[in-house]
Amino acid sequence: MAEIGHGGREIVERILAPAEAKKKIKGLKAIPIRSQLANEVIDLAYGWFTPLQGFMGKADADGVCRNMALADGTVWSIPILFDITEAEISDYGIKDGDSVLLTYMDNPMAIFDIEEIWDYDMQDMCQCVYGTAEDKHPGVARTCGYKEKFLGGKITLVNRPKINPPYDPYFIPPLEMRKKFKEKGWSAIVVHQTRNVPHTGHEWLMKGAWAQAYGGLPIEKPLCGVLVNAIIGAKRKGDYIDEAIILCQDELRKSGYFGDHNHLTSLTFWDMRYAGPKEAVFHACIRVNLGLTHHMYGRDHAGVGDYYDPYDAHRLLQGIPREKLKITPVYSMNWLYCPHCAEITSEGLCNHKKEWQKFSGTLIRSIVQDGVKPPRLIFRPEVFDLVMECGEKYGFGSPFVTDQYLENRTPVFSIGPLSA
Amino acid sequence: MAEIGHGGREIVERILAPAEAKKKIKGLKAIPIRSQLANEVIDLAYGWFTPLQGFMGKADADGVCRNMALADGTVWSIPILFDITEAEISDYGIKDGDSVLLTYMDNPMAIFDIEEIWDYDMQDMCQCVYGTAEDKHPGVARTCGYKEKFLGGKITLVNRPKINPPYDPYFIPPLEMRKKFKEKGWSAIVVHQTRNVPHTGHEWLMKGAWAQAYGGLPIEKPLCGVLVNAIIGAKRKGDYIDEAIILCQDELRKSGYFGDHNHLTSLTFWDMRYAGPKEAVFHACIRVNLGLTHHMYGRDHAGVGDYYDPYDAHRLLQGIPREKLKITPVYSMNWLYCPHCAEITSEGLCNHKKEWQKFSGTLIRSIVQDGVKPPRLIFRPEVFDLVMECGEKYGFGSPFVTDQYLENRTPVFSIGPLSA
Repeated sequence: MAEIGHGGREIVERILAPAEAKKKIKGLKAIPIRSQLANEVIDLAYGWFTPLQGFMGKADADGVCRNMALADGTVWSIPILFDITEAEISDYGIKDGDSVLLTYMDNPMAIFDIEEIWDYDMQDMCQCVYGTAEDKHPGVARTCGYKEKFLGGKITLVNRPKINPPYDPYFIPPLEMRKKFKEKGWSAIVVHQTRNVPHTGHEWLMKGAWAQAYGGLPIEKPLCGVLVNAIIGAKRKGDYIDEAIILCQDELRKSGYFGDHNHLTSLTFWDMRYAGPKEAVFHACIRVNLGLTHHMYGRDHAGVGDYYDPYDAHRLLQGIPREKLKITPVYSMNWLYCPHCAEITSEGLCNHKKEWQKFSGTLIRSIVQDGVKPPRLIFRPEVFDLVMECGEKYGFGSPFVTDQYLENRTPVFSIGPLSA
Repeated sequence: MAEIGHGGREIVERILAPAEAKKKIKGLKAIPIRSQLANEVIDLAYGWFTPLQGFMGKADADGVCRNMALADGTVWSIPILFDITEAEISDYGIKDGDSVLLTYMDNPMAIFDIEEIWDYDMQDMCQCVYGTAEDKHPGVARTCGYKEKFLGGKITLVNRPKINPPYDPYFIPPLEMRKKFKEKGWSAIVVHQTRNVPHTGHEWLMKGAWAQAYGGLPIEKPLCGVLVNAIIGAKRKGDYIDEAIILCQDELRKSGYFGDHNHLTSLTFWDMRYAGPKEAVFHACIRVNLGLTHHMYGRDHAGVGDYYDPYDAHRLLQGIPREKLKITPVYSMNWLYCPHCAEITSEGLCNHKKEWQKFSGTLIRSIVQDGVKPPRLIFRPEVFDLVMECGEKYGFGSPFVTDQYLENRTPVFSIGPLSA
């Protein structure tokens, strides 16, 4: 039976078997791509971006800017663009109707059937997507940094990425994810998007959202799960290293704070745009494709600086009819340590306001930086040991991103020679 | 604007002002009633039993037995009966169409407009309501203990009950309750039915159900509340005394484990029938009238012995279309202490199964009995102190029901002389 994704459309899977791939790429011009585009080729080919089958043409991009929808009316909020310079177009001799071979790490990755060569007023696009064209906004900077032309058209993966350890078990594309959910029997599944190593505040964010998604599940189908979906993409100095994020999130399950019955860790390749509400809608679309029923949103989801009101994302999501975006947004409350209750509790629940000890990112960071083992009610000892280990093993001595890490880390995935 | 209750009908309120009451009761025959009927007169007059306006006639009772519905099709699961002997009928000279005065504590309580005198096969009624006619089932014993005839007809309260301390703040009838909910701005409200002094397991039952009811509330109407609704009625030896139940439940709010923003304690007068699933449906009906949106149900709700499967109540409730019974049942998970997590957690969440320390009623009881102050993660110190104090103040030295308590307790409410 077809798996139906966002926009009511079958989950896209555009991947050729190696033998056919070898035949099809013969004689194609090779165009190397950078990591952002390689990430998005994977998202497109495996269906994370269903109903998109490739990079956008002008009509879709314009629809996204003007109406937060593709040209066919499907809700979509972030343009998915393949940018190129005029000089490159002329050097490669690219015309509408050409097929080219996209390469990554000097190996063939995907066939790109170019349908359209177009351009756009990028200040205008930024204003539409980010609500600002100020280039100190990192999303604006990325978007305004695009080359001056765009190529629209379908892509077909010819070479599956090799997901490198320790990430390999966490690469679970939409069709595979839906199979896993069926095996687990979950009838409600809430996603926790993260770029963090979890402290107990994060753990209870998930536990609270699990109860929120659980809601009034019928007793015949009572199983509810949390999907941790780490966003893996461009890193900034001082972020937790990706290895620590993904392994420590999963450690909460391995160490029994969750179990196989209610928890799964996975990753999505994506370079954050920090588009706030528009990015929240985009995240909802890709999570529909992954098979989720509920999506956690905290304050200022995917925001940056003071560009967005903390609840803009909630308001935008609530204005979209549920039949156009089939996922229920759940507001994830803040959780904190209350010494009076002697446990982690939520702002919504506990009233010992004067005694609350809120989790501060800075405090937790400095605890990790100093290597001082915190109480298990604040930071799980298994997670603490693992984040330290990850720093040693993958981070050149630190669990936080450094220049050395950026230059020398093992890539999350590789594209190897095409073998048949 | 009319307040709409169960069955889509306006909340019933049948209460006369004292001056009019004095006029109307003149010359009526006085019939004294026992506490069960006095409780139900209050429930009827204040609208807890909306759409019922009085004790059932045969058509409604038969509908309840055969179809779990009143004669007009409204969902209803427990017969509300006024029983009387043939001898009494003849001694009082009661006929269809008579109005009589029901008295309680030797004072006038309500006018009863008798529309019908009827009888029923009580073995059959028990089989329908309880699924058994064994008289070791306490509901069956109560039902089979009814006198041989029933009077059906509307009741009108002529004398408001005086609710005695410490219960007085907790008597909040449906119309008043709905006003309170509006003042609080709650858009989702989940009821916790209780006959217990709360330990932290109960506290987290409520906190978990609060998150379940919270679900995906829109950010514009994010307020969610827990209503503790203690069932106050016939007591059994060894139960917690009513004063301890109601005061200790409210203490969780007063001591900040909840707050005014998310917690309210109240009572409903009702002698438990232990009818399991049928009683669960009945509880849902009266909670609809109180203005609730969600109803917690644990394992074996209102059950007794082995008469019902622990999830029969859930199954029965789920089979009723939501438009016929406008409340969402939420399954309340078991909460327990996990030493590995170092906190209270739920069976649904935590996977340290071997380390779990479940709350045993017997253990908690023996802690209270012995007066040994338990850790605050198990039993809140403020609640512990108060349950002890209640034992001294109201329980003749014990927080548990004794013969002495049953004989000498202050009644929950009194009916005084009718004053105008």
